[in-house]
Amino acid sequence: MSTSTPDVDALCFDVFGTVVDWRSGVIRDGKRLGQRLDLEVDWAAFADAWREEYRPALDRVRRGEEPWRNLDSLHRESLDELLDRFEIDGLSEAEITQFSRVWHRLDPWPDSVPGLRRLKPKYVIAPLSNGHVRLLTNMAKRAGIPWDLILSAELSGHYKPDKETYLTAVDLLDLDPEAVMMVAAHEHDLEASRSVGLRTAYVHRPFEWGPEAADSAERPDTSDYDLVVESFVELAERLDAPPIA
Amino acid sequence: MSTSTPDVDALCFDVFGTVVDWRSGVIRDGKRLGQRLDLEVDWAAFADAWREEYRPALDRVRRGEEPWRNLDSLHRESLDELLDRFEIDGLSEAEITQFSRVWHRLDPWPDSVPGLRRLKPKYVIAPLSNGHVRLLTNMAKRAGIPWDLILSAELSGHYKPDKETYLTAVDLLDLDPEAVMMVAAHEHDLEASRSVGLRTAYVHRPFEWGPEAADSAERPDTSDYDLVVESFVELAERLDAPPIA
Repeated sequence: MSTSTPDVDALCFDVFGTVVDWRSGVIRDGKRLGQRLDLEVDWAAFADAWREEYRPALDRVRRGEEPWRNLDSLHRESLDELLDRFEIDGLSEAEITQFSRVWHRLDPWPDSVPGLRRLKPKYVIAPLSNGHVRLLTNMAKRAGIPWDLILSAELSGHYKPDKETYLTAVDLLDLDPEAVMMVAAHEHDLEASRSVGLRTAYVHRPFEWGPEAADSAERPDTSDYDLVVESFVELAERLDAPPIA
Repeated sequence: MSTSTPDVDALCFDVFGTVVDWRSGVIRDGKRLGQRLDLEVDWAAFADAWREEYRPALDRVRRGEEPWRNLDSLHRESLDELLDRFEIDGLSEAEITQFSRVWHRLDPWPDSVPGLRRLKPKYVIAPLSNGHVRLLTNMAKRAGIPWDLILSAELSGHYKPDKETYLTAVDLLDLDPEAVMMVAAHEHDLEASRSVGLRTAYVHRPFEWGPEAADSAERPDTSDYDLVVESFVELAERLDAPPIA
């Protein structure tokens, strides 16, 4: 790990797990639905199972086995499968559609917005997520996430960790790759970013998979990334972004 | 002109002339440069001439006579030509580059930001400009323009009024064309929008070409567009966006 401040102009953020707590959001909306329909469901297990469907669905698109589809479409398909698996029925079509879009309605980790507000005067800040542009726009409007612009895998037609996703973002930022830092809680995202020349910051999010998983959540080797931090506020400190007066 | 409120989800705004006053910005930076270098130049005439080079340069790209290039590149090329024509020399390479990017540093019309702040809680708001993503991002950061996301001709690889520009924006907003309203001070932009199904709002900007041209600036026939307004604040009123408390 470098001890000097990386000289970058723009920061791109992974979103699900890095900026927002997807697991609590899915559990929250699942419980509401369960109460209304008098369902007995382990919504934490449901949330984890839904998220685990995510990577294989993306990978089918990445391998070209399926044409490009946005996350709403992939989430809806996996939700239909999970409703079967968890033996949940009695939901109307409108309720299923509404629930499938809970990924637009996730809350940021407590440090995310304070850290981003501090970073924004000094850096261009953008999401760079596999979520599509409209999903990320709705999420930011609802949660008050102060992005300068919305970047997304959708703009390249390739899902992360395909290199096209990162390089399209770099191109739209009109920068060289080394002037862009990818911020993520997931090593595969940072490894792919680094392989095409971006700077990297790992943010430790031990609660991504819930409180029971937190103790076993491992920090990476600090020498692998330009920065390894515990929060977006620490990221702002390490990147010399002064506190908001 | 319809008297009911158009039922739209998102508003896309032309930028140069509609959101920002390009002419005053170019004159301002031109005068500063002129004072520093002791130049005698009619900067208003210079600004108008620079803007007039814009459409032919875009049209060469639109007709496929030149490959896609962003506005920085087109503005730089026309600036070099104008420096010759106005017999301006003695500028360093860095000064020319800096001046060519004055289009990133334009100020909004006085009603633009107040109107957008009022529209934002009710509608998704985005620029849809021939300016590239980074130019629009820099402009918004500097001027505090509260866009939800940055849309641009660059995302389609086609300049307005090519239909691809509008349809790519509609697609990224995940909406049908009739749920999107294009807002512009220029009829050719609105005509092209309408021809692919968008709703349209004309904003009258009589000072776009300066105070002397203001008296002769004609309003269009109000029956041609869904709305014809004098300011973004009137646009917010007509679209039932309540004042900010």
